[in-house]
Amino acid sequence: MPPSAVGGQPWDYDGCTSLREQGGRAGEVRPRRRTGAIIDRMRTCVFCQIVSGRLPSHRVLEDDHTVAFLDIAPASPGHTLVVPREHARDIWEISEATHGHVAHMVHRVAALLNTALAPDGVNIVHSTGEAASQEVFHFHAHVVPRRHGDNLQRMWNSRPAPGQDLEQVLARVTAVR
Amino acid sequence: MPPSAVGGQPWDYDGCTSLREQGGRAGEVRPRRRTGAIIDRMRTCVFCQIVSGRLPSHRVLEDDHTVAFLDIAPASPGHTLVVPREHARDIWEISEATHGHVAHMVHRVAALLNTALAPDGVNIVHSTGEAASQEVFHFHAHVVPRRHGDNLQRMWNSRPAPGQDLEQVLARVTAVR
Repeated sequence: MPPSAVGGQPWDYDGCTSLREQGGRAGEVRPRRRTGAIIDRMRTCVFCQIVSGRLPSHRVLEDDHTVAFLDIAPASPGHTLVVPREHARDIWEISEATHGHVAHMVHRVAALLNTALAPDGVNIVHSTGEAASQEVFHFHAHVVPRRHGDNLQRMWNSRPAPGQDLEQVLARVTAVR
Repeated sequence: MPPSAVGGQPWDYDGCTSLREQGGRAGEVRPRRRTGAIIDRMRTCVFCQIVSGRLPSHRVLEDDHTVAFLDIAPASPGHTLVVPREHARDIWEISEATHGHVAHMVHRVAALLNTALAPDGVNIVHSTGEAASQEVFHFHAHVVPRRHGDNLQRMWNSRPAPGQDLEQVLARVTAVR
């Protein structure tokens, strides 16, 4: 069964629109009243539909703010996604408070997977933007159990940068700090 | 200059010992009194030394709980590490509160790098354990700006798993929940 039709329902991976696209500001807390745009998103965003229960998932843990469920295309056994119940596109849009709620659940999930599966390690990975391989535009963190000798790749193998390169970057960052 | 001798001082990447190794429990809050073991760690853990200022770094932001500084071997320009001031080995040892402080700083750094460098995306990556490519055993999160067409790799390219595989993993997880 392709990932676009799990549970017999069409999954629209591109369906998540953002508050920013709706004219909202990054980090803005929106009222819970369901506007037409929010109802549209609940129909089209796969993670909003998993959160609401309209799409099935293998739930690992949940609380008032977040839901953790198994990735249907796992990088390793136990690969879990943590998503906020409240829609936010990415790390630039999610509020500080909601990001904190996700981090709290990531910490819980990592401990639970350690107890249940006793992996050799774990990666926590978040992607913002297509350039970073984000595929579903509803903020999510991957919790990926690791084993020695598994087939996952390193994202980078970098060398020390010249000091002046670091100084130049730091100057750009501190200029807007 | 090799990474082991930045600033003319030897960097011991394997020098971080853990509270767990010292007989502490995961998540345990230790008193701030500097015991012999803590003094030893401050001498040998490269991130403890950066936090204390005994080793130089390119500081991006800092607060009472965390320090953010440029990775000396960046995957991309602006690649920043966020570390807690209080030593913890990994996600299984760090307290929930300290993990939350790191998440708060990650959120700030991602916003700052977006303003300063206008990347196309960003990855947030944490590694626990050698199996997950952890190299410095003091908890840290990577904030990695991304550009379309940069040379970073995907960690995985996975396919949907059979439903019964997911069910089996979920059963193992829920059994210890």
